[in-house]
Amino acid sequence: MIYMDNAATTWPKPQRVIKAVTGCMERYGANPGRSGHKMSVQAGMILLYTREMLCELFNIRDPFQFVFTCNCTDSLNMAIKGSVTPADHVITSSMEHNAVIRPLKEMEKQGLKLTIIKCSPDGDIDPDDIRKAVQTNTRLIVTTHASNVTGTILPIEEIGRIARSFGIPYLVDAAQTAGVLSIDLHSLPVDMMAFPGHKGLMGPQGTGGLYIHPDLDLPSFRQGGTGSQSESLYQPDLLPDKYESGTMNTPGIAGLGAGIREILRVEQLKIQAHEKRLGKLFLEALSHIKGVKVYGPSDLSRRTGIISINLENRDSAEVANLLDERYDIAVRGGLHCSPLAHGTIGTLNQGTVRFSYSIYNHLDEVKSCIKAIEEISRC
Amino acid sequence: MIYMDNAATTWPKPQRVIKAVTGCMERYGANPGRSGHKMSVQAGMILLYTREMLCELFNIRDPFQFVFTCNCTDSLNMAIKGSVTPADHVITSSMEHNAVIRPLKEMEKQGLKLTIIKCSPDGDIDPDDIRKAVQTNTRLIVTTHASNVTGTILPIEEIGRIARSFGIPYLVDAAQTAGVLSIDLHSLPVDMMAFPGHKGLMGPQGTGGLYIHPDLDLPSFRQGGTGSQSESLYQPDLLPDKYESGTMNTPGIAGLGAGIREILRVEQLKIQAHEKRLGKLFLEALSHIKGVKVYGPSDLSRRTGIISINLENRDSAEVANLLDERYDIAVRGGLHCSPLAHGTIGTLNQGTVRFSYSIYNHLDEVKSCIKAIEEISRC
Repeated sequence: MIYMDNAATTWPKPQRVIKAVTGCMERYGANPGRSGHKMSVQAGMILLYTREMLCELFNIRDPFQFVFTCNCTDSLNMAIKGSVTPADHVITSSMEHNAVIRPLKEMEKQGLKLTIIKCSPDGDIDPDDIRKAVQTNTRLIVTTHASNVTGTILPIEEIGRIARSFGIPYLVDAAQTAGVLSIDLHSLPVDMMAFPGHKGLMGPQGTGGLYIHPDLDLPSFRQGGTGSQSESLYQPDLLPDKYESGTMNTPGIAGLGAGIREILRVEQLKIQAHEKRLGKLFLEALSHIKGVKVYGPSDLSRRTGIISINLENRDSAEVANLLDERYDIAVRGGLHCSPLAHGTIGTLNQGTVRFSYSIYNHLDEVKSCIKAIEEISRC
Repeated sequence: MIYMDNAATTWPKPQRVIKAVTGCMERYGANPGRSGHKMSVQAGMILLYTREMLCELFNIRDPFQFVFTCNCTDSLNMAIKGSVTPADHVITSSMEHNAVIRPLKEMEKQGLKLTIIKCSPDGDIDPDDIRKAVQTNTRLIVTTHASNVTGTILPIEEIGRIARSFGIPYLVDAAQTAGVLSIDLHSLPVDMMAFPGHKGLMGPQGTGGLYIHPDLDLPSFRQGGTGSQSESLYQPDLLPDKYESGTMNTPGIAGLGAGIREILRVEQLKIQAHEKRLGKLFLEALSHIKGVKVYGPSDLSRRTGIISINLENRDSAEVANLLDERYDIAVRGGLHCSPLAHGTIGTLNQGTVRFSYSIYNHLDEVKSCIKAIEEISRC
């Protein structure tokens, strides 16, 4: 089987990740930070270890600026609902995933004002459009770092500078980029960054996180037991407990730590170079196949490891099924939970056939994909 | 090591649980219910399998009445915040965990009215006190099924009948009972039940769920991608997608399914009988040790597998440390994230030394605990 659905979940996971998960369950599967016994302390240590790995990867000093969540959607809900009230105005882009759009649309029902900046047909945004959209009650700017439909990378540094110039918090959805692109949170003008554990960071599903800038004070999203200030009926204010109620996914977070360690070991620049090689081969070959429409920028430096295509007017889900059934190639067809992005690139009816690769895909696999597309396009 | 901290997280997990987690990650670690390829379909099937296990255990026909969450606290926040507005009144008990109290106290700041029924010193509640507390704007009754401090089982059937007689939804926190006590949701007058996956259900940390009665229509807690109605900017209304946004913890849920399967295999009545044997030995022996104060009911049929004690006026955290360091016995000392419960039983300053056992503890281990308590009480 050729797995080309890494934009949804990366697979396979490094063996070290799986071992970290089982090792945690077998050897120190107690509650972290609650009871004081040895196994509980050890479980607490692994959470700290993973936070330290996040610090190293994203260049942050204080591990408690990272809060664990159950997925990137959870992080985005926490960040959005903690940042704005229904009286506020929010600016976002037309390339967003439903994990950004649906919480905003839910709040819009209660009065929130929303400006959705129209992106170009290849998925790019003009930062100046954001500047022009700022109003006196704009309390949040939120954009994806890279589209999950086209792979288009958005200019988060420029957007962040604009946000800072107005003193408006900027939230980045790094679902497609965390672990793949180099992200230096120390120098970037980013106030919050939501990320999944199970994509580029190579961790297991059920993990994710939110980076919160030390100057921000979000209210808690969930309240409950934290193992700290147990005498209090109110959520503690200290980090990371304020945002981490109930028992954490310790085995998952242990796996996430091992996944990030693996990325640091392989080196991000090598991951990027490998994915560029795959992308170059893929895009060049596709340009020679008649009837193939490729979405997103042609410039490889402006896209992540996603190649979204269509074969003339053929149903994308049907093409995806053919790839699965006849060629054992796993891709995603149809709409990718991002209706606005499909509207922007003109595929709201057709969807796209999305190939997404990772460090673990080989050139030969890309060649097989190209061969399969060629054959399907002929029949 | 003797592990007596099962009220926090059960350990060890059945080997089948660990194998289900690794098997999922290794063999079908794709996104469930998103892409249509074989591995994604297989990942979706395991979620359905675990829902079916929940149906079998709790006697419910429709698997989509169970919603997956990341822990019991998440479920409780979803249920509480979805059921009431700041204009409403809620009734709860003085034996609640902070996972119930802190969300309510957070909403109290915005105007929510809260009645906390005072329980007896052994942790029991008089259901009639709940009846008397009902007001015209009471929109929710929420109680624990059993206290995490004393193990006292609350009369949820009687409370539920009172709730039904007023047409008020009743939410049960089954953190200490799911998987251990027999819970028949088909016949019980319970409208929502929050449960963790990593305690009595023997699943991994990072799993949990919420049962929602078909007559209830809670708003979604998180909005985001669901893999369904992808063309819509709004959260779909269909179950379980309405409440499950973003990528689920598939490996964890696979483990949870295996855990429940194991409980069904061993049979709950046998689990209960075994835990009763341990409890009987424990309580009897403790009654002969001078200076030991045991909390909760003396009647074993009214308590779960928790024995909370104190040795005269000694600091409970210090006693817990001695048990860990000298005897390699893992317990929890201090306050157990339930300040109101500690207030109710009179241990807000001292906390308690909490022993909590599971089906995997042996009589010999209880004997070792008793011996250790005897020795510590003498020095």
